[in-house]
This record gives sequence, C-alpha cells and structure tokens, in this order.
Amino acid sequence: MGLLSKPIKTLDDLFVHTLQDIYYAENQITKAPPKMIRKATDPQLKQGFETHLEETKNQIKRLEQVFQMHGQPVKGVTCAAMYGILEEATETMSDVDDKDVLDAAMLASAQAVEHYEITRYGTLVAFATQLGRQDCASVLQQNLDEEKATDRKLTTLAESRINRRAA
Amino acid sequence: MGLLSKPIKTLDDLFVHTLQDIYYAENQITKAPPKMIRKATDPQLKQGFETHLEETKNQIKRLEQVFQMHGQPVKGVTCAAMYGILEEATETMSDVDDKDVLDAAMLASAQAVEHYEITRYGTLVAFATQLGRQDCASVLQQNLDEEKATDRKLTTLAESRINRRAA
Repeated sequence: MGLLSKPIKTLDDLFVHTLQDIYYAENQITKAPPKMIRKATDPQLKQGFETHLEETKNQIKRLEQVFQMHGQPVKGVTCAAMYGILEEATETMSDVDDKDVLDAAMLASAQAVEHYEITRYGTLVAFATQLGRQDCASVLQQNLDEEKATDRKLTTLAESRINRRAA
Repeated sequence: MGLLSKPIKTLDDLFVHTLQDIYYAENQITKAPPKMIRKATDPQLKQGFETHLEETKNQIKRLEQVFQMHGQPVKGVTCAAMYGILEEATETMSDVDDKDVLDAAMLASAQAVEHYEITRYGTLVAFATQLGRQDCASVLQQNLDEEKATDRKLTTLAESRINRRAA
C-alpha cells in the first residue's frame, strides 16, 4: 500500500486489500517460472515448475472471479513481500555455481513462494467466512488446496531426489 | 546475498547460506513484535506476540548452536524476503484505522512471518539430514515445530475471536 492507498476501516476493506495483494503476487509469480523452467536440470523439477505455472494462471482467473463476486474491480496492490521473496530467489540463483545445487536452491525458493501463498489464502478464506461470503471462501479454498498440494509435492521431490543429487 | 557474497558450490554451502538467511530474518523479527505488542488491543493477541518474542530469542540461540556445531562463524546475510514481509506488515498497519481490524491485520502479518520461517526451517532440516548432520537437523526441527505450533495458535485465535471482533 502506501501514500496512494485507501484507508482500511473494516474487515471487508482488509479482505479486499489482501485479495489485491495476492492478485499482484500471483501475477508476479507468472514471471519467475519461465526462467526457473529454463534453468532446471532435473526433468521432474522442470515438469513441476511447468505445472505450477499453469496452476498459477488458473488461480489468477479464480481471483478475478472472487473480485467480481464481491462487486470489486480487479486490481492489484504492490506486494513488498513477494517482491522480496522473488528478489532473494534471483540473488541466490545467481550465486550458485553447480547445476544440481541450483536445482535444490530453486526448489527451496519455490517453497518460500508457496508458503507465502498458503498464508494469504488461509487468511482470505478465514476473512471471507467471517464476512458471510461462503461463496468467495470456497473459490479461495481451491487455490489454498492447490498451493498446499504443490508444497507437499515439492517436499517429496526434494527429499527423494533433488537434495540427494545436490549432495 | 549479492556482490560481496561467497559463491555457492555445494549443498553444504547452500545449507550455510540458508542458515545465515534465517539468522538474519530471526534477528529482524525481534524488532517488529515490540511495536505489535504495543499496538495490539486484544489481550490474548498481545500475550501471543509477547510469547513469540521470547520464542524467537530462544530460536536465535539454537541457530547460534547450529553454526557452532557445523564449525561456522555466526553470521547473517541480508534476507530480502523477510525485509519485504515486514515492510508490507508496517505499511498495512499504518493504513488501518480501526483497532479491531488492526488486530486482524497484525495477526495475518504474523502468520506471513511464521510461514516464511516454516519454509526455511523445513528446507534446513532436509538439507542437514541429507548432509548427514542429524545433530543439526534435530536442533533445527525444534525451531520448525515451534513455528508450526505458533501458526496453529494464531489460526485458532483468528477464527475464534480476532476476526469476529473485526467484523
């Protein structure tokens, strides 16, 4: 938010603000995977990043649907958190020399992204439920469930092959 | 990392780098709660922030122990992700007018912090295990378990009272 942002007076305002934050974040995220897909060596990791990119595009459509259901214009607000997470991912990527260690580093960065999304969708579902917008909550829950499933898949991939190859 | 950082060539280097990242992040986190404790209205939320501040100080000591066990100097590297998460928390706090809505916003920010810690400790435990450093992994697991427990407590607090008071 910042100088030009609207004051937050109600839980509904906070819900809309959080929706705008994750909408901006998801759009930022679509810019990172193409580079990660190109740089990934392990075929399963590469495939995982490709699948996640497609999922993110669907999640953005669901967010647009929630804006519409809630009578709000589709809009993002700068998300300093996602900016920081992606900046850190890029810096770490540029510092890694070995291709297998790079896979492990990129997988860890992807999990940091997932966890940011998990926390925001968890909050959004709780806010929507409290506001009596069960319709919005159930659409947001679909995004939350996908993010959690992706995080679990990444953990399995890290523990079953990526970290072993990097060691 | 950046211009002055050491290249990451092995999984061990990446483990140490991630340790330095979360060490910096945890130290940043100790600076945020005093303001959040002052600004919180709900007594249970205020108490939750106080407990978390004490836990964070203990977690920093455990990280120093892991540096020592791994024969590394205690050192942090700038964590752009935590910087972004805390910047966003501060901006949102300054945009909220109502004290009950502010409680809900601060609780959500605290959960974003928790989730960043959860992802990094999860990665660190997996790296330490892969490197055969079960001793380091079990110390890091204690921090991971505490962060997950705090996140669950915050979810219960949000759903049982904070979001209701804000609505």
